[in-house]
Amino acid sequence: MVKPLASIVSAGLSKFGAREGLYTRELFVEAAQEAFEKCPELSPKRDIDGIFVGQMSESYEHQAHIAPMIADWLHLLPVPAFRSEAACTSSSVAMRCAIFAIQSGMHDIVLVGGVEKMTNLPTAAVTEILGMASDFPFEQWHGITFPGIFAMMATAHMAKYGTTEEQLAKVAVKNHENGTLNPKAHFQKNITVTDVLASRPVAWPLKLYDCSPISDGASCLVLTSPKLARKFTDTPVHVIGSAQAQDTLGLYERDDVASMNVTKLAAKEAYEMAGVQAKLIDVAEVHDCFTIAEIMAYEALGFCKPGQGGKLLDEGVTTLGGKIPVNTSGGLKAKGHPVGATGTAQACEIYLQLTGQAGKRQIKGAKIGLTQNVGGSASTGVVQIYRRGD
Amino acid sequence: MVKPLASIVSAGLSKFGAREGLYTRELFVEAAQEAFEKCPELSPKRDIDGIFVGQMSESYEHQAHIAPMIADWLHLLPVPAFRSEAACTSSSVAMRCAIFAIQSGMHDIVLVGGVEKMTNLPTAAVTEILGMASDFPFEQWHGITFPGIFAMMATAHMAKYGTTEEQLAKVAVKNHENGTLNPKAHFQKNITVTDVLASRPVAWPLKLYDCSPISDGASCLVLTSPKLARKFTDTPVHVIGSAQAQDTLGLYERDDVASMNVTKLAAKEAYEMAGVQAKLIDVAEVHDCFTIAEIMAYEALGFCKPGQGGKLLDEGVTTLGGKIPVNTSGGLKAKGHPVGATGTAQACEIYLQLTGQAGKRQIKGAKIGLTQNVGGSASTGVVQIYRRGD
Repeated sequence: MVKPLASIVSAGLSKFGAREGLYTRELFVEAAQEAFEKCPELSPKRDIDGIFVGQMSESYEHQAHIAPMIADWLHLLPVPAFRSEAACTSSSVAMRCAIFAIQSGMHDIVLVGGVEKMTNLPTAAVTEILGMASDFPFEQWHGITFPGIFAMMATAHMAKYGTTEEQLAKVAVKNHENGTLNPKAHFQKNITVTDVLASRPVAWPLKLYDCSPISDGASCLVLTSPKLARKFTDTPVHVIGSAQAQDTLGLYERDDVASMNVTKLAAKEAYEMAGVQAKLIDVAEVHDCFTIAEIMAYEALGFCKPGQGGKLLDEGVTTLGGKIPVNTSGGLKAKGHPVGATGTAQACEIYLQLTGQAGKRQIKGAKIGLTQNVGGSASTGVVQIYRRGD
Repeated sequence: MVKPLASIVSAGLSKFGAREGLYTRELFVEAAQEAFEKCPELSPKRDIDGIFVGQMSESYEHQAHIAPMIADWLHLLPVPAFRSEAACTSSSVAMRCAIFAIQSGMHDIVLVGGVEKMTNLPTAAVTEILGMASDFPFEQWHGITFPGIFAMMATAHMAKYGTTEEQLAKVAVKNHENGTLNPKAHFQKNITVTDVLASRPVAWPLKLYDCSPISDGASCLVLTSPKLARKFTDTPVHVIGSAQAQDTLGLYERDDVASMNVTKLAAKEAYEMAGVQAKLIDVAEVHDCFTIAEIMAYEALGFCKPGQGGKLLDEGVTTLGGKIPVNTSGGLKAKGHPVGATGTAQACEIYLQLTGQAGKRQIKGAKIGLTQNVGGSASTGVVQIYRRGD
């Protein structure tokens, strides 16, 4: 068995949704407080020696430089803290930095998380802010926003592989169903394929129910060096693979927009580090910002051959009872997508699943988990692999 | 001698100033190109396995998610890249992450730098964007911007220690003089104490010439594991100390606004790591965003006792010919302060000084250097110590 890179000894998630009246700092504290309460052996002030926070944008709250503010609100000053930004992968990248810090021996016990407060602004303003993660002179300037960008990926996939609108809809249906079992999810109600197909078009073939919502939320993990993990818990979850790759910021420079090259590259490296193959994954959280993205993730992760993602949905392979349950949390689609929080929120779900704390959505006996997170139009891709610590 | 954390084998700096017509991506490439050209043994595509970029704000260019764009423009895709943000310490924090990555063994040869494109917007817009690094509900909302925040620190320092407007002015005069010797500096002309005192008040006691300018620019370093350094250069510069501390985001929560607690804490830790004391520092770059900040930096770094910073200037201790030359590059005040670029630009200057490449501003025989960088109203503080590799 490979040596772990770092170990998750606790995790916390704020309720996701429209959290009126709460600032970023308060949302983050809500998540951290849960992680601290679940880990009575941890004395945050004594133990935590670094804070890593992912956040996409300063624009929602007109607030940059959030890391010292969060350290302050957690009563953890003067512990070093900083913010990482890589669009929707902001907190996955924070987690990778935390892993570097732990592997370096320069930090032992860190708090890593992500946060975004989005619902205080009108939808058009949020859409514009999100659009900043695409290329300004080559994309934004011409008026395209992310639904349009992913719609182009979807039409390319449909043209190349015959993927259907019904298959896209099945991603939303599955993830909404999982969301009904997650009390933290933004949406906790079932929808049908008919509902998705009948919802209003945003950018064809993507309808409203093909899109993840605008949500507020925060997520965090207490991450330690593997040798310290047992001091804090009998059930650590080890990170055994972590890889990242980049692609062009703009779609226009890509050879193939019907596949996710960053995920393919990061998955290959993460599987090698972890010494596992796709077929050994018991549970996965993938980046379903739009339904097409989940289908492309299946293919890039090797859960199926290129072009066969829609078929996995037809066959129910990725449902709770299927062979590789995907997005048991409800995914970005139903749990919500507070952008900066998403990366470590995926890791939180895997932590819950691998420690048997996932309640009604628990996958029995899950030992190996995976998270796949992309930023922008998959210009950044992070894949991480986790193993139950026994 | 302590074991180095990482080694600088090359460095590059774009010209600082109003760089009309250049985007962030192009400024960064200008800096990286210089670093690559100065290091013929380096084959960027073959060797560089990680990119760490500091940038303060997405708002200047309406462009977030800059790391993949920079990786693309450098022809380094799919190498992992991300952005760190910690206000004016954004690239110092990127450098610390790069050090973690190298110390972890997960990266060997990385490009670390920073960039900011600021002069494309009107001054009032830039001032508002910079203000985002202060506390929104407790500071920004009430209309205060950074000149006002540092003016409060200056008046506290004057009241407590008797520091004078003339002493503040001497910081600007010294740094402008150094700037005349740096062809990359934004300002390359001498000014007098009378000029500073006669310049228009921005926030008393700070006049226009007490403030660093709004500049465009980029800086970068090629950082390797110490054991690989000699493969690329006969004159590496080793990073032997690196520490970071946080304080409250808002001034209102501090016990003492006449001192820089983050710098004191980070300096103590960095000196211990490096096994050196303040008196051994041959050359230092400190964070003179406003003249008062340089005086407070002297005190927090132990270059003099608390309250004696002004006296160091009266005695010329920190001039080029003095005992501890400070801001030989011209500092933020004359070289310019493209926010995200500043941290690694300070490291670039120390690299030049310790390798004998600083031209007319060369400090003869310099062996040990220091950089001190603060973010916001010193809510983040980074201190790093460097040793000539011989």
